[in-house]
Amino acid sequence: MTNSAVDILIVGAGPAGLFLAAQLAKINAFHASRVRTGEPVKRINYRIVDKAEHKVLVGHADGFQCRTVEVFQSLGIAHRVLHEGCEVAEVVFYNPDPEEDGGKGGLKETQRVIDTEPGTSFFRHYLLGQARIEQFLSDLMQDEDGTKVEQLMEPTSFEMANDVNSTEYPITVKLRHLAPSISNGSTKEDSKSGLYRSNLFATEATSSTGGSGTDDKATVDEEVVKAKYLVGCDGARSWLPTIRLKNVIHSAESGSILTVPRERGYVRFYVQLGRLEPGQRVNRSEVTIEKIIEKAQSIVKPYRLECADVEWYTCYEIGQRLCDTFDKQERVFIAGYVAHDIETAPNTGILTSIFPHFREYSDACHTHSPKAGQGMNTSMMDTYNLGWKLASVLHGTAQPSVLSTYQTERHAVANDLIEFDRKIAGLFSGKPATREEAGVSLDEFHALWKKMGKWTTGTAIEYSQSSVVTSAKQQDFGIRPDLATGILIGSHFENHPAICCGTAQDIQLQHQLISDGRWRIMLFPGDIRKTSVADRLQSVCKKLDGEGGIIRRYTRTGDIDSVIQILTVFATPRLDIEKLPLPEILKPKSSPYGVPAWDTIFADDKSHYTGNSNTYIGYGIKADRDIGCAVLVRPDQYVAGVWADTDIEKLGEY
Amino acid sequence: MTNSAVDILIVGAGPAGLFLAAQLAKINAFHASRVRTGEPVKRINYRIVDKAEHKVLVGHADGFQCRTVEVFQSLGIAHRVLHEGCEVAEVVFYNPDPEEDGGKGGLKETQRVIDTEPGTSFFRHYLLGQARIEQFLSDLMQDEDGTKVEQLMEPTSFEMANDVNSTEYPITVKLRHLAPSISNGSTKEDSKSGLYRSNLFATEATSSTGGSGTDDKATVDEEVVKAKYLVGCDGARSWLPTIRLKNVIHSAESGSILTVPRERGYVRFYVQLGRLEPGQRVNRSEVTIEKIIEKAQSIVKPYRLECADVEWYTCYEIGQRLCDTFDKQERVFIAGYVAHDIETAPNTGILTSIFPHFREYSDACHTHSPKAGQGMNTSMMDTYNLGWKLASVLHGTAQPSVLSTYQTERHAVANDLIEFDRKIAGLFSGKPATREEAGVSLDEFHALWKKMGKWTTGTAIEYSQSSVVTSAKQQDFGIRPDLATGILIGSHFENHPAICCGTAQDIQLQHQLISDGRWRIMLFPGDIRKTSVADRLQSVCKKLDGEGGIIRRYTRTGDIDSVIQILTVFATPRLDIEKLPLPEILKPKSSPYGVPAWDTIFADDKSHYTGNSNTYIGYGIKADRDIGCAVLVRPDQYVAGVWADTDIEKLGEY
Repeated sequence: MTNSAVDILIVGAGPAGLFLAAQLAKINAFHASRVRTGEPVKRINYRIVDKAEHKVLVGHADGFQCRTVEVFQSLGIAHRVLHEGCEVAEVVFYNPDPEEDGGKGGLKETQRVIDTEPGTSFFRHYLLGQARIEQFLSDLMQDEDGTKVEQLMEPTSFEMANDVNSTEYPITVKLRHLAPSISNGSTKEDSKSGLYRSNLFATEATSSTGGSGTDDKATVDEEVVKAKYLVGCDGARSWLPTIRLKNVIHSAESGSILTVPRERGYVRFYVQLGRLEPGQRVNRSEVTIEKIIEKAQSIVKPYRLECADVEWYTCYEIGQRLCDTFDKQERVFIAGYVAHDIETAPNTGILTSIFPHFREYSDACHTHSPKAGQGMNTSMMDTYNLGWKLASVLHGTAQPSVLSTYQTERHAVANDLIEFDRKIAGLFSGKPATREEAGVSLDEFHALWKKMGKWTTGTAIEYSQSSVVTSAKQQDFGIRPDLATGILIGSHFENHPAICCGTAQDIQLQHQLISDGRWRIMLFPGDIRKTSVADRLQSVCKKLDGEGGIIRRYTRTGDIDSVIQILTVFATPRLDIEKLPLPEILKPKSSPYGVPAWDTIFADDKSHYTGNSNTYIGYGIKADRDIGCAVLVRPDQYVAGVWADTDIEKLGEY
Repeated sequence: MTNSAVDILIVGAGPAGLFLAAQLAKINAFHASRVRTGEPVKRINYRIVDKAEHKVLVGHADGFQCRTVEVFQSLGIAHRVLHEGCEVAEVVFYNPDPEEDGGKGGLKETQRVIDTEPGTSFFRHYLLGQARIEQFLSDLMQDEDGTKVEQLMEPTSFEMANDVNSTEYPITVKLRHLAPSISNGSTKEDSKSGLYRSNLFATEATSSTGGSGTDDKATVDEEVVKAKYLVGCDGARSWLPTIRLKNVIHSAESGSILTVPRERGYVRFYVQLGRLEPGQRVNRSEVTIEKIIEKAQSIVKPYRLECADVEWYTCYEIGQRLCDTFDKQERVFIAGYVAHDIETAPNTGILTSIFPHFREYSDACHTHSPKAGQGMNTSMMDTYNLGWKLASVLHGTAQPSVLSTYQTERHAVANDLIEFDRKIAGLFSGKPATREEAGVSLDEFHALWKKMGKWTTGTAIEYSQSSVVTSAKQQDFGIRPDLATGILIGSHFENHPAICCGTAQDIQLQHQLISDGRWRIMLFPGDIRKTSVADRLQSVCKKLDGEGGIIRRYTRTGDIDSVIQILTVFATPRLDIEKLPLPEILKPKSSPYGVPAWDTIFADDKSHYTGNSNTYIGYGIKADRDIGCAVLVRPDQYVAGVWADTDIEKLGEY
């Protein structure tokens, strides 16, 4: 039996696991591109294994929130989502009306709302199959550091040292290498059905990311992997007139339908099949594609519905459950989404087939209904939160205690998600109120939908105070949220345009925050044409760059912008900035060629094409104040704090 | 010796050859996606061969015109160019000034101009290495119909039947299969030099697309390929303060430099090394990277120039030459760009090593200096022009005589290009005028540069009257250019936004014209809320769709939108159009599932995000006229003609 050791072992190659791996690859590639005078930064050694024979090919999750697309941008794959995905522009509500169909009663369009409110994000919502995003993440991983998913690898046992700090590799996992299927037994018809991994039928649940099961597979080899960290990302057992919009259809008696447009002209239908009494189970014979279509037809009456082609279908039971804890001694982490849970008790089930000895943590973090399109997004944002923290600890630029914030930050998000989901699911499944009967009020539905708009874009998340987020109340650190009223501490750094001085282009400031594992100080000094501003900036830069300065203190490799990058936005016309002899720390000689950076200085100025960028206004920063501001942004684009630039040493202390 | 037959044999896998192959793949994929009641459309059987061992890896061409990016959009690869490429925002002119450097004389920034005038195109100019675009085209080809470039294949002989119509496959080419190199003899240093394929040193010129030569390679096999058509796309033997902008630097005595920004922080320098007297040849010992840098340093004085890394360099002799004819009996075509030509006589040289028996056509079409960034773009636009014509003839939807328009249309473009290049090259190489000496006037330079702006975007091309372009004067066909004053017959269909009725999104109308080989009728009926407009539209659609109607006449496969697609833009708010019972020909039941098209009806309306689309104003069409208009657009997006919709039968006759 072979033995090996890795920094991080990732179990499960669904969106959460692949996202984590892709982020680590990006961080590795960043450091590999650098030439350092000191000791080189060690490559983070990770493996990603999955017991399925191949990745998911069709079906499953498909909704991408604005915030997820923003993060894809920081990894350099958003353009592929925009190219292949469907944008949803409007949501159309259909509701029962007794006057319709000549008095027989039927559906009527009652309201339309915009799906992504203008100003929410540079991006909008997109629909695209999970298989494609898994492909993009795999491609990224392979391009950045050559890593591939190891398929047909099943963990069979797991051990962890009692004192995790007594040894370098406290985690031991046994991996079984499975033989590939000799013949592919699945017919084309089978591949359309997602029931084998729905939450309805326990005995058929097999693989974490689709593909065929493992029970019938021979073991060809076994190996023992020792790891510093283990991350479980095994979620898994876990035509109308406006059909290219998002449609919310409530029928009077038959239940509800949600439709979303999909790539290649396809449409996804979420059809409510019925309601279960406590303890009641789904009748297997009901779950056929014919029955689902029949049910959908009865809901949309008097409209007719015919299905020309069915690419994929599944069935799930709605339930909201949440794991108590996301980590074990800050060494073993779970992440990701489970839409389905056949157990009725919370926190059990899903991962047991993969980690039989790890039952107490063997659920994925959160389980809820897929209808609100939250699952895949939240999963990937889980590992986005975790990835840079693991990398920082392994690089020695953060204390291991930072890892505890994964649990505090993401558990709170999962909790809010479950609450939200419970409400939305209730509204979808509930019978609409009529004049005669009580029920779900349509006004209530619309109101919640609108209120939840920001939530469903993924941009509403606000992390609480911790070692990596300050609070407006932390007077000792000199936090000054009043200096940038458009920036919310604990929330992501929102996008506003600016002009890049080096290229004369109108750029998106958020797009400059690449997910390469670096922290960033966003400096807003004001108008440098004023002598007072220029003088102040010189003094700020001395505190950053001087002997024992903030930047030098945390950069031990002689590669000055490798741990913290400074991006500066002036309230000054570009041409006036261009030839100024700015302090070198603002335009550092970048590795590997020592060429001065040309992409770190920005202007709040007029674009050749799109008018004024209004960057300072966008971030709520007064350009004419006699004080500048410095915003500290984490490697995952969340704002850690806002300081007066004259107080920059307090940022350093923090 | 194996024997085989193909519809089209493409020799050379540079940008022109790959572009042609990718376009054919796209057309094949379009027809393969369709289910037809009649006879299926035959797959176009093509091969693309190249004698090099691998494709170009670094260097060569790098500028992409707006118009080329528009065409990439129609193939679905523009997003990759935008993601990886550099946008050029401004051109900066540096000129000698005796006052500079404390009276010693030196360079001074004298002017700045925007590189792409607003309104020219939805896209701007991009810089990206030729290797990447060849990768994108290869990927597209493989994704669309699975074809791959066949490397290490060298044509050794060529024969063509005297009467090309006497036999199905009149062309016979012998291909030599070469053995791969046993060891790669090139060092890293060698790979930086492009001299082996420059136009300076005949004996070293080897491969059409870079890579190692063939002379030392063993023949492992030979085959005979018979073809209906042959296309030769073997072009080939054929830090300053504003360094991320485009810089035009004229020194007083030392010559000129042009710089353009490139991806990954690189910059391309075009350095004038000297001038040759008639009959004089370049001194080989001058062409070293050290000498080139030294020369550049002397030009930019008093600025200092240091090169941290050199990825690639080459040297070429400026000359403008043009082939007399681009085709032979409309069966053999040449396409593509040759920057270099060591022979002094026109129409010789370049392809001779590839087609020794085909000397009279053995030059690529045009040869000129690379500085204006015209070569790769013009090459690909050559094969864009040719590809759909070949496909139409092979599909039987056009007469073979349409192929003669390749020569007439593209030869005129090449002629204009050469004229333009001659002027630009003279200005670059000429010494600037000073108070004391005559020379190139800077005003003259700037004036030509600005005037040529539209030319260098690729959007200025206007094809003359032919079987596939009408003329405003053709009264017999009822041409009515006055109905759409923003549309130029013979030019490409320009972009304006509109709102898609099916998706409620603001879309770019030009992006709907996918390069899948289809003709398009763009209908602008006016405001359909008016009864007169609705009635007129009914009558127009009857002429299109009725028994013997225009569409049915040319669509023999029972797949109504497979030859001509109709796109309709109403001057009506979207919500008023959405539920109208439009004539079926405007929203045909699309193959393969018979689902009504949701992407053929557009509104000139307000967007959720970007204001009014002003589509009718953009195209110069009066919405309140009592007559609509119909624009016929070719498969390569060029406008064939404009008709009154009431005269639609004249479009049919045409």
